[in-house]
Amino acid sequence: MDAIILSIGDELALGQTVDTNSPWLAQQLAAIGYKPVAHLTVPDDQAAIRQAFEESVGRCDAMIVSGGLGPTEDDLTRQALAEFLERPLELNEAALENVERFFRALRRDMPPRNRIQAMLPHGTAMIENTAGTAPGIYCNYQSGDQKTVCRIFVMPGVPKEMKIMFDRGVLPRLREQGGRGGGGGGNVILSKTLHTFGMGESAIAERIPDLMRRDRNPSVGTTVANGYVSLRINAYADTRERAERELADTDRAARAALGDLIWGEENDTLPEVVAGLLVRDPLAARRAPAVCAAESCTGGLLAKLLTDVPGSSAYFRQGWVTYRNEAKQNELNVSPETLARHGAVSEATVIEMARGAAARSGAPYAVAISGIAGPGGGTADKPVGTVCIALASPRADSTELDVLARTFIFHGDREMVRDRSAKMGLTMLRFRLLGRPMPF
Amino acid sequence: MDAIILSIGDELALGQTVDTNSPWLAQQLAAIGYKPVAHLTVPDDQAAIRQAFEESVGRCDAMIVSGGLGPTEDDLTRQALAEFLERPLELNEAALENVERFFRALRRDMPPRNRIQAMLPHGTAMIENTAGTAPGIYCNYQSGDQKTVCRIFVMPGVPKEMKIMFDRGVLPRLREQGGRGGGGGGNVILSKTLHTFGMGESAIAERIPDLMRRDRNPSVGTTVANGYVSLRINAYADTRERAERELADTDRAARAALGDLIWGEENDTLPEVVAGLLVRDPLAARRAPAVCAAESCTGGLLAKLLTDVPGSSAYFRQGWVTYRNEAKQNELNVSPETLARHGAVSEATVIEMARGAAARSGAPYAVAISGIAGPGGGTADKPVGTVCIALASPRADSTELDVLARTFIFHGDREMVRDRSAKMGLTMLRFRLLGRPMPF
Repeated sequence: MDAIILSIGDELALGQTVDTNSPWLAQQLAAIGYKPVAHLTVPDDQAAIRQAFEESVGRCDAMIVSGGLGPTEDDLTRQALAEFLERPLELNEAALENVERFFRALRRDMPPRNRIQAMLPHGTAMIENTAGTAPGIYCNYQSGDQKTVCRIFVMPGVPKEMKIMFDRGVLPRLREQGGRGGGGGGNVILSKTLHTFGMGESAIAERIPDLMRRDRNPSVGTTVANGYVSLRINAYADTRERAERELADTDRAARAALGDLIWGEENDTLPEVVAGLLVRDPLAARRAPAVCAAESCTGGLLAKLLTDVPGSSAYFRQGWVTYRNEAKQNELNVSPETLARHGAVSEATVIEMARGAAARSGAPYAVAISGIAGPGGGTADKPVGTVCIALASPRADSTELDVLARTFIFHGDREMVRDRSAKMGLTMLRFRLLGRPMPF
Repeated sequence: MDAIILSIGDELALGQTVDTNSPWLAQQLAAIGYKPVAHLTVPDDQAAIRQAFEESVGRCDAMIVSGGLGPTEDDLTRQALAEFLERPLELNEAALENVERFFRALRRDMPPRNRIQAMLPHGTAMIENTAGTAPGIYCNYQSGDQKTVCRIFVMPGVPKEMKIMFDRGVLPRLREQGGRGGGGGGNVILSKTLHTFGMGESAIAERIPDLMRRDRNPSVGTTVANGYVSLRINAYADTRERAERELADTDRAARAALGDLIWGEENDTLPEVVAGLLVRDPLAARRAPAVCAAESCTGGLLAKLLTDVPGSSAYFRQGWVTYRNEAKQNELNVSPETLARHGAVSEATVIEMARGAAARSGAPYAVAISGIAGPGGGTADKPVGTVCIALASPRADSTELDVLARTFIFHGDREMVRDRSAKMGLTMLRFRLLGRPMPF
């Protein structure tokens, strides 16, 4: 079954925003057996949008559209769809309720302008929006001279709203109905992604040369995003069962080769994985909430990651952002002598920060980070990107703490150095909770 | 003059790679007066590529194509172009020299397979590739029944090679030749973006109805990203001077209507803007670093934003992540009675957090945030998204602090609620430093 993805927006057409909706949608469609045969992007122009509908409906079983459903005058997707369908826009009560509910939740009055978002072409249905004001639109389009039906789904362009709506309101409809060619058969592409952190892309690739051969099926490729090196496995097969089996085999082979370097898969996040280890760790559970954070260069980012996870109060005790030496001394009891002798960016300092945070909070685990995020502040001895991280952790048989300290040099700009530093702090904690040495 | 951008590749169509070529090309085209009226993406499929040519040439003055020029069997763009033009592929000597020179520079023999890269449709010209093996292809397409000419430029998909080729081999040709509408002048599009935070998209639009009229030039559209509502102004004119003047006029009109709601433009960030106000504020400068952060639900994100800016130690003193009541009491001196009577998410609590943080750190400004980020923890009285924020600030004439507290309800998931809360904390600080009341 073929799908066409249509993205609408001046900012996309003019190249002012990179379209991340289309690749995301393409992956979702491929995973359920819809082949994305084209992506189209057009500006907020009613004639251009209508023309895109006209040219696409005869060529695919499903059109997945996003953008142009906002309440303002430059949002013209619903008008263009109505024009293409040759049906009037009319108020949809369910859609109005969706918009009004959104404003009720915010305890605000609905501006009159937002009423347009509840106007749908006659004969089309609403797709609920649980994350924003713009309801989606759904219809089956059957052209006069064609026997095929094209299902049209229109969603808002805001990526977060679009993704939630796709998962809840579009995916189930695509799954339950057959399209061109009917049910069963067809080529299936199944994908799986495994995530690592801490080693470079080529170092990962060198450990799995056979899996990464170009002619292999399932294929394995690496992608790098936000410091994570991920393996993308694509299994192509004639049946879903075969694709699933082959995907599982390659998954096992990758895990055998990379071991604990793989911290998660698919939509897992590193904070969630660490949170899962923390709530299952007996030493952490006995003294919950078990973790505290003492940060200098990361400026709160480590604590932010630790508290990204709902229910983080079960394991996160508290955090300090001690950006200046004075705060390190006053809050965490770092000695002025250590700061003077070794500097704020040193293993000696982060060890004292971790011990001080653990002592002050009573948490058995403490992660401390101090580094040079840049762009200024680097020296020949400690270049920009130099980051020291310490992890204090409990011993099973005594009240003493173990403290592990490491120095890393991270590449990239300020944002990247801070990001990698916080993720490495989580990674050190992860390997400690796994009871394994750091593999890099 | 209109342009269509065509990207070719299985990895793009399947969504495994985000297409960054198209937005880059769109910006380059807009800057020289070509309006990108559509982007298309198709897989490495000869029929699909040919169809894309067929559907596009009559609708634009220039087609800018990238991808599918490699030496392997899945690279089919030149074959598809030849089929569309109804001309045979033939060896182009200049193109062969281009490919061979590349391999000579690497001191390698040219693999026989690469010879295909020197095959061009009869009657087309080569565009030199100085950064890779694949020469580009250039031709003027004139359809039988149309008087207009569509110029077709085909480039490799590797972003680095494509960009160099565009600058050297495509841009000069686009500039020197007139398209639809003849030579001279040509339309210029100049853009500017203004950023706001705190009011919804429709509330912003209601304040500038004239600017947002669809038929207006310069046009003004709104986009929403990461909680910021931004105005995008696009000025279309026949000369650069006129476009600049009209852009400036609309910029002034938008600022007159929205005032301090606009916190920045283009690539400004809210933390940078607040940092700029802090270092210029006399009360802050006298007691620098002047700001501290006391966070519950944002878990360190406010401190992270404040320290995003290089040199933040000039104004950021320290931060606390007091996720639990115990930490609020121990670190910030919040009274157990206040917590018991009003709850952790209350204006009374954040006021005490802000006062405690200011007192403990000695910073004249303190921002405190406590809220229900969700997904759990909401009540009828305080639904998920309820966030209290307090700002302590100095008075010019006494040592007393002013403390302003506000309660907000933010919509969205945990990440969005936390993000908006931290940005609202910055926004409250921004209005205080501007000496203006909050406009919402």
